Amino acid sequence: MLLKDMSVNELENVLKDEKKKYDDFKKDGLKLDISRGKPSRDQLELVMPLLDEVTSDTKFPDGYRNYGMLEGISELKKIFADILETDPESIIIGGSSSLNLMYDQIQRCMQFGVLGGKPWNKYGKIKFLCPVPGYDRHFAITEHFGIEMIAVPMDEHGPIMDIVETLVKEDETIKGIWCVPKYSNPTGITYSDEVVDRLASMETKADDFRIFWDNAYVIHDLYDDKSDSLKNIFTALREFGNEDRAYVFTSTAKITFPGAGVSCIAASENNKKDILSHMQFQTICNNKIVQYMHALYLKDLDNTKYIMRRHAEISRPKFEAVLASLRCGLDGLGIADWTEPNGGYFISFNVLDGCAKKVWTLCKEAGLTITTAGATYPYGIDDRDANIRIAPTFTTSAELDVACELFVCCVKIACIEKLLFEKK
Amino acid sequence: MLLKDMSVNELENVLKDEKKKYDDFKKDGLKLDISRGKPSRDQLELVMPLLDEVTSDTKFPDGYRNYGMLEGISELKKIFADILETDPESIIIGGSSSLNLMYDQIQRCMQFGVLGGKPWNKYGKIKFLCPVPGYDRHFAITEHFGIEMIAVPMDEHGPIMDIVETLVKEDETIKGIWCVPKYSNPTGITYSDEVVDRLASMETKADDFRIFWDNAYVIHDLYDDKSDSLKNIFTALREFGNEDRAYVFTSTAKITFPGAGVSCIAASENNKKDILSHMQFQTICNNKIVQYMHALYLKDLDNTKYIMRRHAEISRPKFEAVLASLRCGLDGLGIADWTEPNGGYFISFNVLDGCAKKVWTLCKEAGLTITTAGATYPYGIDDRDANIRIAPTFTTSAELDVACELFVCCVKIACIEKLLFEKK
Repeated sequence: MLLKDMSVNELENVLKDEKKKYDDFKKDGLKLDISRGKPSRDQLELVMPLLDEVTSDTKFPDGYRNYGMLEGISELKKIFADILETDPESIIIGGSSSLNLMYDQIQRCMQFGVLGGKPWNKYGKIKFLCPVPGYDRHFAITEHFGIEMIAVPMDEHGPIMDIVETLVKEDETIKGIWCVPKYSNPTGITYSDEVVDRLASMETKADDFRIFWDNAYVIHDLYDDKSDSLKNIFTALREFGNEDRAYVFTSTAKITFPGAGVSCIAASENNKKDILSHMQFQTICNNKIVQYMHALYLKDLDNTKYIMRRHAEISRPKFEAVLASLRCGLDGLGIADWTEPNGGYFISFNVLDGCAKKVWTLCKEAGLTITTAGATYPYGIDDRDANIRIAPTFTTSAELDVACELFVCCVKIACIEKLLFEKK
Repeated sequence: MLLKDMSVNELENVLKDEKKKYDDFKKDGLKLDISRGKPSRDQLELVMPLLDEVTSDTKFPDGYRNYGMLEGISELKKIFADILETDPESIIIGGSSSLNLMYDQIQRCMQFGVLGGKPWNKYGKIKFLCPVPGYDRHFAITEHFGIEMIAVPMDEHGPIMDIVETLVKEDETIKGIWCVPKYSNPTGITYSDEVVDRLASMETKADDFRIFWDNAYVIHDLYDDKSDSLKNIFTALREFGNEDRAYVFTSTAKITFPGAGVSCIAASENNKKDILSHMQFQTICNNKIVQYMHALYLKDLDNTKYIMRRHAEISRPKFEAVLASLRCGLDGLGIADWTEPNGGYFISFNVLDGCAKKVWTLCKEAGLTITTAGATYPYGIDDRDANIRIAPTFTTSAELDVACELFVCCVKIACIEKLLFEKK
């Protein structure tokens, strides 16, 4: 039965039950966290053999242990290129953080401009399109540089392209768009071929408009028998003669170790030359011993996918547990919906408008940390106050069950209180 | 006998001999490089046990293998703090490159200003003081950001402070100074206590003036029985109430692996807070597995110094060989002088004015790469065309002997040709 069709009396009874449950949870003094997309301890254990790949007996190729090779080592460029379905020549390997590469790329555009063009700093104001809900750290970078963020709604195919196209066609100060095109953070959806094509082909008023294509979950499938496929952005861009439009990022943060993997940026010949023309002053090279360790461990695309399947064996049951809890606790009540992704690290959950912050507070007070309500929107403002990002991977399965039960309970309380308020 | 006192005839005879030697070198098809401060293969072998410190059996402290800890792990902060004679609280650990930290720090000052002050980008023009001869990569960063470089001569005590003080007192647009205070690149000198005190105490017109204190060779002694000591910049700054004036950098590039070590920035509480307020958007953390590996390997300051002594056992004979060659080939001729450093990676060599480029070309044409003449000066302009940086460490001892012989020969040819030109 839909909660909104219940009488005040019925709602009050349900509320009473849920509040009792909630108080019991509170007494347990829980300390649970489903807020960030972090691999679990089991996943970290899985990839420990990475650390045996280089030892004092390792024969390193010439130059790998000394200064040099700004772009990184060829073995790993090849693996990244295969993962991103592009050419090793397009790859620059970074440090452990692709976020760092993105931040630095924005900073380069601000300071030096794109391909010798006017530095973005020299505009009175520039703007970025931010498909929502999206990745809070993207928005944080943008805000930090004083770039105005324009939220663009997404559906199951990606950002609503009618809106994107209209905006970028008219406004020269719109310089970029953030995209997590596969298993999007947090919705888990993958951009349709049409969306990729329209992003690649659309007319932009700014000739230095850039797509920040954060392909963080490129091979991060949860299932063997169903996975999303994403149209190759490089192919699409070439098709439409816009090969310089995108910077593509990925990393092994969720393949090997978060914060201790390797990252890369893939770019057209022009973009790469432009990036290196600045990067050459920033550093002599990134850590090639870590790169070589990764090249030896990952071996090739096939083996990397094999490692990802083993990660999925650990993460999949957690996603399934969350989804089962949500279904069991909330199906048919008409107060929430959520995504059921085939990969990535998140489930995006929408509660009745005006209830997300309340859910967050209730969870927090009972010892469950969920992503701050609104965090998935620019400036932390979710106009509907509805979206909550759930990250199932980090906790143990046992903890996750408790977390989900508590979460469902908080959702019900917040929604019933809202419905009661409206009915009274 | 001083060459300048020789007759034209005598000079022509010496020149003939040297040219014959030179032609013989040329025939050998040499490929030698004494241009960059890179550790040798033997030094890389020395530190290979670093790579055995973490394996799949390592029990990592909680959180070391996952996202988090932007400032780095406490064990390594302690070691860096001891190396730099400061408090672990002042340390932020970076990636593998301290140059990267310096570049990023300049970029942050340009983009965001210092401690909330006016961004350096917002000045029409800013300037940096560049003690000369100095480190070409510092100058390259400065030039890349369009910062005007003012060369300040150095003597054996550091930059000539009368000049520095006069300049910074008058000009608000002078925002910083590059310093390699110990075993300076390339002169090998160490700043005197008086220079450190005067840098720490001097009146600066700009309240956001910053010393970029690149303490790259802080424990890089060549001898057990003689080493330079550098006054602690933090102490000096505190003494004069200017604790926010310096950013201090170092790395293990020449302790463990160049390009694959760990770096750090040490700063006052205000500066550190300021840095982190931006850095928090740039990355979640640096590679803590690499940090932990280093903490386990270096252990503490004493053990790190022990490792440095073993490096010195490899490098010292090379420095001594170069110095012996220079003495043997050039002493008493009045055409060159050079430094005899107690540590670091370089010997700074001055030839007769107007001859450095010629020496460089002669060396190059015979297969010996030396640092580009002028590279040790802002904009690559050595007004006297006299300074050449020699980096003895990278080549094998056998190669180094040949390189030195050839170098001496080139110096003689260039100088005699100059003297002959003047005499005729």
